[in-house]
Amino acid sequence: MAAELSPRELRDLIRKRQWTQPTSGASKGFIQANLVMMPQEQAFNFLLFCVRNPKPCPILDVLEPGQVEPHIAPGADLRSDLPRYCIFENGRLKAEVQDVRDCFQPGMVSFLLGCSFSFENAMLAAGLPIRNIEENKNVSMYVTRRDCRPAGPFASKLVVTMRPMTPQQAVRAVQITTRFHLTHGAPVHLGDPAEIGIKDLSRPEFGDPVAIRPGEIPVFWACGVTSQLAATSVPLPLVITHAPGHMFVSDLKDEDLTIL
Amino acid sequence: MAAELSPRELRDLIRKRQWTQPTSGASKGFIQANLVMMPQEQAFNFLLFCVRNPKPCPILDVLEPGQVEPHIAPGADLRSDLPRYCIFENGRLKAEVQDVRDCFQPGMVSFLLGCSFSFENAMLAAGLPIRNIEENKNVSMYVTRRDCRPAGPFASKLVVTMRPMTPQQAVRAVQITTRFHLTHGAPVHLGDPAEIGIKDLSRPEFGDPVAIRPGEIPVFWACGVTSQLAATSVPLPLVITHAPGHMFVSDLKDEDLTIL
Repeated sequence: MAAELSPRELRDLIRKRQWTQPTSGASKGFIQANLVMMPQEQAFNFLLFCVRNPKPCPILDVLEPGQVEPHIAPGADLRSDLPRYCIFENGRLKAEVQDVRDCFQPGMVSFLLGCSFSFENAMLAAGLPIRNIEENKNVSMYVTRRDCRPAGPFASKLVVTMRPMTPQQAVRAVQITTRFHLTHGAPVHLGDPAEIGIKDLSRPEFGDPVAIRPGEIPVFWACGVTSQLAATSVPLPLVITHAPGHMFVSDLKDEDLTIL
Repeated sequence: MAAELSPRELRDLIRKRQWTQPTSGASKGFIQANLVMMPQEQAFNFLLFCVRNPKPCPILDVLEPGQVEPHIAPGADLRSDLPRYCIFENGRLKAEVQDVRDCFQPGMVSFLLGCSFSFENAMLAAGLPIRNIEENKNVSMYVTRRDCRPAGPFASKLVVTMRPMTPQQAVRAVQITTRFHLTHGAPVHLGDPAEIGIKDLSRPEFGDPVAIRPGEIPVFWACGVTSQLAATSVPLPLVITHAPGHMFVSDLKDEDLTIL
C-alpha cells in the first residue's frame, strides 16, 4: 500500500523510476513539499518573496547553493527523488522530465515549501468534507486579484485553493488549519468569491471544478502554486519546479510543524 | 506618558534625539524589533540563518538592499529612528552611536526580528510574574550549549532568556506565548538548567540575575541576542545592530502577529 510506505522507501522507488505517478496519498502522515530550484543570483530575492508571503509560500527548507540533500530528509537527492519536474527557461515551460541530474546547475538554490496535503489529512480526520477527494478530482485553484508583497523582481497574484463546506464546518476548518501554519495555515477568505476577484467558481485557472451543495460556502486557502507563478514571473535562464501533484515527500510528520 | 505615545510620535522624538533611553514600556501594545544591518553579499546567508532558526530569530521584516523604510512602519528611517546603535567592524564592537546615517553603506540589508516585549505584555495581562520587571532589572540571558542550525558562514549557540515561575504558571505561560510565534513563541526549555548547558543561573552572560523563589522553576525562551552573536560570528567589514534595550518600535500591534 502506497500510504504505508515510509518516505525513504517511497523516495527509493521514485529514484529507481518505479514510482512515476502523483504523490497524493503516499506515505500518509508525512509532509510533502513544493520544490523550486533557481540560480544563486536571485536566491536572496526569492527567499525574501517567500518570507514576505508566508501563507502561500511557507518555507520548510532552503538549501545552500549547489546542495541537493535537504535537512528535512537526510540521504535524499532533490534532483532525482521527485516523480516529475517542470523545466522553465526564461519564464516559459520547456519540458517535463523525471530526473534533473543532467540540467541542475552548480550553485542553484533549492526551496522546499509547504503544501496543503498535511492539513487535508487533519480535516479528513475531523470528519470535514474535501469535495475534490470525494469526487476524485484535483483541487480547484484560482488566481485572485490580491497582490502578494513583491521582492526584488519577483511578483505574483495570490493563488488560492477552494473547498466548499457549511458555515459550521468552515469554523471547524479554521480551527484545524490554524495549527498548520507552515502548510498554508488558516483560510485567507470565505464566502463571496467576487471579493477576491474570482468571477466564476466553475472555471478554476488550475485543477478541476467541484460541486457546491445548497447551504455550503466556498472557503479559500493560500496555495503553493503562487510560488511557481512568482518564480517564473522573471525571465530567469533556468528554474526547476516539481510537476503539479508530484511533490517531494519529506521525513517530517504532519504534526512536527503544528504550532499547537 | 511614554506608554501612551504612538509609535510615530515616539520615532519622531527619537529622530530629534529628544528620546535617547531604552524603549522598554514605550508605545505599549506595539511590536518592538531587534535590528541587524549587514552587507548585501552576506544577506542571503543571514536570511537563511534566520529562516532556519525561527524561534531566536523570528523575521518581522527584511528590507531590500539599500532601503531604510520598513514595511511595518511607513515613513520611518532605520538609520535614525532607534535611540542607540552598535557598530561592529570585523566582528568586534567598535562604537555605540545615536545615528547611523553617516556609516550606513549603500546596498546594506536591514533585518527586523521579533523581541520578547510583546509576549511579556500578554503574560503580565494574564497575571503571570515577570521577575526582572518586579525587580526593575534587565532580563537574565544565558548562552546555552545548543547549536543553532548554521547557514553559510553564520553560526551561534542558542541564547535564552529566563523567567522563574511556579509549574502551574509555566503551563499558562506556554499557552500564552505559543500565540506569539513571531516574537519567540513557546519556551524552548523548562526546569533543569544543566540540561541546556547553563551552569549557574546566578551568573547570566547578559542582563541581571533575578530571585528564584521556593516552588518556582526556571522557564527558558529563545532570545534575539542569538541573532547578534550570529551576525558577528563572521568578521564582516561592517554590521550595525540596535544597542541592547534600544529597539525599533513598529506600527504593528502585538496582536497583529499572533497565530490564534
